[in-house]
Amino acid sequence: MFEEKLKEFEPIFYPKSVAIVGASATSIKAGSLWVWALSSAGFPGLIYPVGSSGGRIANLEIFPNLRLVPGEVDYVIVAIPRQSVLEILDDCVTKHAKAVQFFTAGFSEMDAQQGHKLEEQMLEKARQGNVRIIGPNCIGVYCPEHKIPFLMGILGESGSVGFVSQSGGIATKLVTTGIARHINYSKGVSFGNGIDLDASDFLQYLAADSKTKVIGAYLEGTRDGARLFNTMKEVAKVKPLVVWKGGRTEAGAQAAMSHTGSLASSAAIWSAMLKQAGAIEVHSLEELTDTLLIFQQLNHWQGTSTAIIGGLADGGGGNSVSAGDACMENGLRVPPLSLETKQELSELLGEVGSILRNPVDVSQAQFRGLATLFQAIDLVARDTVIDIVLIQEDMDILLPIYSQKGLEEINEFFIELGSRQNKPIIVILPPGSAEPERLQIEQKLLAASIPVFCSMERAAKAIYKLNQYSCWQEAK
Amino acid sequence: MFEEKLKEFEPIFYPKSVAIVGASATSIKAGSLWVWALSSAGFPGLIYPVGSSGGRIANLEIFPNLRLVPGEVDYVIVAIPRQSVLEILDDCVTKHAKAVQFFTAGFSEMDAQQGHKLEEQMLEKARQGNVRIIGPNCIGVYCPEHKIPFLMGILGESGSVGFVSQSGGIATKLVTTGIARHINYSKGVSFGNGIDLDASDFLQYLAADSKTKVIGAYLEGTRDGARLFNTMKEVAKVKPLVVWKGGRTEAGAQAAMSHTGSLASSAAIWSAMLKQAGAIEVHSLEELTDTLLIFQQLNHWQGTSTAIIGGLADGGGGNSVSAGDACMENGLRVPPLSLETKQELSELLGEVGSILRNPVDVSQAQFRGLATLFQAIDLVARDTVIDIVLIQEDMDILLPIYSQKGLEEINEFFIELGSRQNKPIIVILPPGSAEPERLQIEQKLLAASIPVFCSMERAAKAIYKLNQYSCWQEAK
Repeated sequence: MFEEKLKEFEPIFYPKSVAIVGASATSIKAGSLWVWALSSAGFPGLIYPVGSSGGRIANLEIFPNLRLVPGEVDYVIVAIPRQSVLEILDDCVTKHAKAVQFFTAGFSEMDAQQGHKLEEQMLEKARQGNVRIIGPNCIGVYCPEHKIPFLMGILGESGSVGFVSQSGGIATKLVTTGIARHINYSKGVSFGNGIDLDASDFLQYLAADSKTKVIGAYLEGTRDGARLFNTMKEVAKVKPLVVWKGGRTEAGAQAAMSHTGSLASSAAIWSAMLKQAGAIEVHSLEELTDTLLIFQQLNHWQGTSTAIIGGLADGGGGNSVSAGDACMENGLRVPPLSLETKQELSELLGEVGSILRNPVDVSQAQFRGLATLFQAIDLVARDTVIDIVLIQEDMDILLPIYSQKGLEEINEFFIELGSRQNKPIIVILPPGSAEPERLQIEQKLLAASIPVFCSMERAAKAIYKLNQYSCWQEAK
Repeated sequence: MFEEKLKEFEPIFYPKSVAIVGASATSIKAGSLWVWALSSAGFPGLIYPVGSSGGRIANLEIFPNLRLVPGEVDYVIVAIPRQSVLEILDDCVTKHAKAVQFFTAGFSEMDAQQGHKLEEQMLEKARQGNVRIIGPNCIGVYCPEHKIPFLMGILGESGSVGFVSQSGGIATKLVTTGIARHINYSKGVSFGNGIDLDASDFLQYLAADSKTKVIGAYLEGTRDGARLFNTMKEVAKVKPLVVWKGGRTEAGAQAAMSHTGSLASSAAIWSAMLKQAGAIEVHSLEELTDTLLIFQQLNHWQGTSTAIIGGLADGGGGNSVSAGDACMENGLRVPPLSLETKQELSELLGEVGSILRNPVDVSQAQFRGLATLFQAIDLVARDTVIDIVLIQEDMDILLPIYSQKGLEEINEFFIELGSRQNKPIIVILPPGSAEPERLQIEQKLLAASIPVFCSMERAAKAIYKLNQYSCWQEAK
């Protein structure tokens, strides 16, 4: 599907050469930042800085204008005032560039009439000269596999999550959150006003791209709703598509108007459209990244019968109660364990103080040592009535009881269990008063492909969405 | 109101002497942990360890039984198997102890019939002997002012937030989260099965206690719904009362049954009751602590006209859009700034790329230096149409642009602004890829009484609740 996009977008996500218009040897400009970012990221293609100052930057010659660049130029990044954009477009056409990304802002998002007119002139020139435009008012492409970082040189590991974002700020936050939470991107794009290539084009490309397994999108508006709807419908057939629509309220919509010139239509229309297209709607950065994380780790997963294990050291009671609420209120099932499991658990832990239903409070294990704790968790995970295992790990209680060494053993067991079990093992690691230790454990678990969430609510919401997609796929 | 409770509860929250039954010189038992916790916290009263082993613990003599303790005993902590609880109660009566807290578990929460019978016998003995019971199945009292820590020796600073919790685990998490987020407690209690003193009693005490300005509660059920309702109604008249009801769902309610022996009634009934009592309902630990934090800092605040300031360095566009959505969807207003402010802002920042509506994108200030940034924020904060100022600070973008030094200046400005302005300045500090730096800034702001939240949604929800209470108070 959309296979034709692969060739067309090759020079955008895997350019052999990039020219940056607006670099300077003497002053810090956005163009210069791009040169440094590409160069220090180890971009494998050729980098051509262009700027009227001449001189050198990052050990590269600055060409006084684009036409003087010696070789071929696949991709052009433009970061100069808007007065010169038409002229630059002429240069791009002359150089047979395949695509040009305008960081330059101040178009329809600022001045509905003048800005819009200028955008139309740009588009006309681009169409005639056979060059595609990304933006204006955007930070463009992110492709860790091809060492294309974001503006400030931000570059995470290469992975299987693709994204499109109308906002550069949110695109950047997706990437930095990804670095923190081990959400690794295949590629992504911030496309701003999207006057030529827009959400539909990039979504089609990501649907065709074999490296991309799941797609996230932050959208504020579109100039062609029908095309976007049809695209989403096609894309969602082959890959999970998670969409965050910004500008759902009056305040948000007004900001969207001055941000990307988007005329945001009503939130209800968008929700209905997303539902019909089979896309998964989310409402915040947290929800978007939670959902991308769970799809990245599990991709397709069906089953909502959840075991909730708490009280690893102590304090499991209230946490079990509230975890049960959080899961059920967010659409998961928390079924009783099988009689066999219950019996084995009570033989192992005794009945005093333990809740041997589900949620399971294993706090009695603390008096019998870690081996017993692991055995208890293993018993629950093996129960055939259970599809998915959620473990509540509270550093504030675990650390004083088991100390750093015990904690490491416990988390190594989770990793081992996750690799051994063919059902998802997910850890809830709420913040508290031992943040450095908590962050360390979080990194370790995430690196071993164990999904980690900071609250039961967020985990349950994400798991429910995973199931929604599988059900929808099956019902098709 | 409830003034009589002050004298009655004095020996519970400010005991002159505490006996701990179940201490051991040789093995680690819960009783020993309590001795160590009180002793190392610097508890100013007398500590009497009691245990059949004899010997010494934490430089204190262990008395073989409670009756042999030489002086008066205000408060007794019991951590021995349940077979001996009636005997211990006799000893408490003999010693004229005022109150006894049972850590001991295994009563009605485990065995409906036998456990319940034992509880009734305990209650009868206590009534006859004029001693009050806290628990069983609980970790009891937390009072930083009187250096009474929680079980593991956890002790934060003394403050103005009171809490009652049926769950010891959740009580502990409230305290550790408090330490992390500078929510400082006047006193709190985990009362477990609450067979004698229960939520109503402690709520009445906290309502009378002059040190307590706002009260949080985690409840699973009650044995006297009418009394709890009437108490909440009275308490909410004088202090904000924030209630998290656990066991709202089938899974949660089942866990509550085996946790504190609570027969949880329907979530709808509780919600209606809380609403009618004027209490503020929350649904998670995050919501509870967010709400307590905002009440602690602002206590009474009326006004939902919010200014949202973003793009401190860059990337303000999409964040402004989504922040506008988050605030409006959670009940806040995001009004246009006054014409005067808009004009002054556009003179200061120029119009290019800035969103000079509200949400306000101040990203243009980055090209003009920090003084301009501060001036812009100051202008917005001073606008008389604005009640409350929310500032979006994203470390992932700020740190590479302003570095550590600039970042410190920025946050010092927020602190200075907060102390100068008579309207709330609230900072949104989302997690990302610079966690150590973010945690440091968070601590600094919180220490200076600037409320900090990790997402706009959570801040908006808490502010809305603050306003709900003020409106309800006014409407009375």
